[in-house]
Amino acid sequence: MGLLGLGTVGTGTAEILLDSAGRNPLIKQMAIHRVGVKSLDKPRAVDLPRELFTTDLESIVTDPEVDVVVELIGGIEPARSLILKAIEAKKHIVTANKAVIARHGDEIYTAANEAGVYVLLEASVGGGIPIIQPLKQSLGANKIQRVTGIINGTTNYILTRMQTEGADFDEVLADAQRLGYAEADPTADVDGFDAADKISILASLAFGGRIHYEDIEREGIRQVSVTDITYAEDLGFVVKLLAIAQRDEHTHGSLQVRVGPTFVPRDHPLASVNGVYNAILVEGEPLGQVMFFGPGAGKGATASAVVSDLLNLFSLLASDQKNPLLGCSHQHYCTITPISELETRFYVRFLCGDRPGVIGHLGTCFGHHGVSLESIVQIGFQDHLAEVVVVTHDVQEQNFRDALAEIQGESARDINIASILRVL
Amino acid sequence: MGLLGLGTVGTGTAEILLDSAGRNPLIKQMAIHRVGVKSLDKPRAVDLPRELFTTDLESIVTDPEVDVVVELIGGIEPARSLILKAIEAKKHIVTANKAVIARHGDEIYTAANEAGVYVLLEASVGGGIPIIQPLKQSLGANKIQRVTGIINGTTNYILTRMQTEGADFDEVLADAQRLGYAEADPTADVDGFDAADKISILASLAFGGRIHYEDIEREGIRQVSVTDITYAEDLGFVVKLLAIAQRDEHTHGSLQVRVGPTFVPRDHPLASVNGVYNAILVEGEPLGQVMFFGPGAGKGATASAVVSDLLNLFSLLASDQKNPLLGCSHQHYCTITPISELETRFYVRFLCGDRPGVIGHLGTCFGHHGVSLESIVQIGFQDHLAEVVVVTHDVQEQNFRDALAEIQGESARDINIASILRVL
Repeated sequence: MGLLGLGTVGTGTAEILLDSAGRNPLIKQMAIHRVGVKSLDKPRAVDLPRELFTTDLESIVTDPEVDVVVELIGGIEPARSLILKAIEAKKHIVTANKAVIARHGDEIYTAANEAGVYVLLEASVGGGIPIIQPLKQSLGANKIQRVTGIINGTTNYILTRMQTEGADFDEVLADAQRLGYAEADPTADVDGFDAADKISILASLAFGGRIHYEDIEREGIRQVSVTDITYAEDLGFVVKLLAIAQRDEHTHGSLQVRVGPTFVPRDHPLASVNGVYNAILVEGEPLGQVMFFGPGAGKGATASAVVSDLLNLFSLLASDQKNPLLGCSHQHYCTITPISELETRFYVRFLCGDRPGVIGHLGTCFGHHGVSLESIVQIGFQDHLAEVVVVTHDVQEQNFRDALAEIQGESARDINIASILRVL
Repeated sequence: MGLLGLGTVGTGTAEILLDSAGRNPLIKQMAIHRVGVKSLDKPRAVDLPRELFTTDLESIVTDPEVDVVVELIGGIEPARSLILKAIEAKKHIVTANKAVIARHGDEIYTAANEAGVYVLLEASVGGGIPIIQPLKQSLGANKIQRVTGIINGTTNYILTRMQTEGADFDEVLADAQRLGYAEADPTADVDGFDAADKISILASLAFGGRIHYEDIEREGIRQVSVTDITYAEDLGFVVKLLAIAQRDEHTHGSLQVRVGPTFVPRDHPLASVNGVYNAILVEGEPLGQVMFFGPGAGKGATASAVVSDLLNLFSLLASDQKNPLLGCSHQHYCTITPISELETRFYVRFLCGDRPGVIGHLGTCFGHHGVSLESIVQIGFQDHLAEVVVVTHDVQEQNFRDALAEIQGESARDINIASILRVL
């Protein structure tokens, strides 16, 4: 394959391919033939042979050795021209570039269909969250009614902090820029362009038709004030930048597509999606509601999505007949750790005769067996017995059981265990 | 295809296939050739020609006309024998049967690999939530560290009601049985067998090895008391029946697989999964955390998963070269509803000169344009101006804008709009 761009996502992608153990076995077969970069001299975080590097990106997309072009340079040009040239040369495309697909998807997909190649774009929406493939495949049985997403991490981070800290937009934006959660020029994020690109891609897949980018009603979060966020809370809502595409109930077949700050009821599944996390809620018939939640950006998450597209392509290209991704490729049994060696936290509730020193006795017995406690509290009384609740740190199951045996030993017949539960 | 069983899920599956408009175009090509049932006389909710029905299920799995067998009868026998016989006759299998796969997956997959057929099982875990295919494909780039699931709807329903109502297990179980959320014999659910079957399937996919069913540490929820649920809340937790499979950090390559009631921190993504909903949290490197949430059971949801497997099979069987599920098959543009016709709820905050009749004026103007209000409240003062917050019902955008224009008309120059946001 040929890699265009070795920035954050390109580096993450190369790191996965160079460390294939423990991942899908197909990854071992993927080789990077060429890497297109802006500068040959820049130090790189990933260990790739220098002879793969070139600044001549056009030579990669026409290289006969290259069957898949992974476009990770972003932006409209030269990404658009390189993708079209690669398609012309019969290369399959994997891209994380929402903008070029949202705005030039028409010519790109028309060219790809003519050339008989795939253009895959799992990484373009929702970072590491699988959402493109579920819309194409797993949810295909459904008539989709609505797709609602929190699909811009920067604005969700800003809104979450405005809500929890009561801070103003400008203040939080400046801090987000300082921390690297917002760009120096934040327009694409805070004015909703990025979310509009992404909802146009999701709408196209969910409703099986292309979307004119300029048809999307788009509003950003600059005018959202702390006052409104506070009133929202009083009324039982949180404010989120939502991207929504839905079938219009009145005009059959027509769609509504919009991006804007929205009051979300507090018990709605999207209301608790905070910080840089993304989530996409899909509603369809007969499925009902299904939600996909995860990291919407970042090196590893986005690279995970890029490589999932590569897996799909390689399973198609490599397989003579059987799709290795669908079949069962393992035959051995996993080794299972014996329960006595499990390490977890525990909650135990004791009912004890009310005498001095009970808590000391419990603490001593746990200590004997190396069971470290987070808390030990006498909570109340039940039928004249003292109720003592213990929460442990991570401990080995066998040690914990041994401690319980000692606690209930001969000298303490008045200590009963009312319940034991594990703690996550 | 041949359908074994026309109960709830079988009926849902047939309903999708008989009503293909608006769904993936491949569904139109799927034909039901045979339907295996227990009784020919029973009235059916779905309109299938009676000549397709037979009580001789063996004749379906060996029928040369049938290339895919959809097994929806559940339980171990005769499901296991029928599946093996179908595989021997080179049929692909789609099944929703977690028990037969968890306990006899070894012989079933060995037979399928030998025969060169697929056994697909999206419907076996998490109902309509896509989780099997993401584990096989979209998440394949990752080294999976842990899979944590709320994958039994009955127990989650019972625990949720115990928590919200402070009611005892026996009481809630009896009510759940009355309402159809729990079976007359609730053992499979409340004692954790169902969750153990499912986590064994997820662990097998996530970690690439089979699981001996008897290796799974399993505990149900019968002994969970309201007392413990209350203490959990005091300590910042909720109690959930979790199924967990994780790589052991200490013994490299060994797994922990267990099912049991667990204290879950209140801010954990799984803590807010309530009622009959299911959710599966997958943690991997480099992805981080990704969660899949949705209806874990039910006719439509489970049928959606069955048909997603059929889509995968038919795209493989029907395609000469290009996988129609991965490519872009639409070329037209969607019709978009003009923004003026959008129907949503609105939140508006006004700053008004403090004079009698302001709220009446606002209410009258909204009324003139058919904008129905949910609430209109004077909340406070800001810079000597009265702050009035209005929340509307679903209204047409144009009507809403017209009402705002009238409100700000000549007679009311002291009414300013501080902010407008949509309400979900």
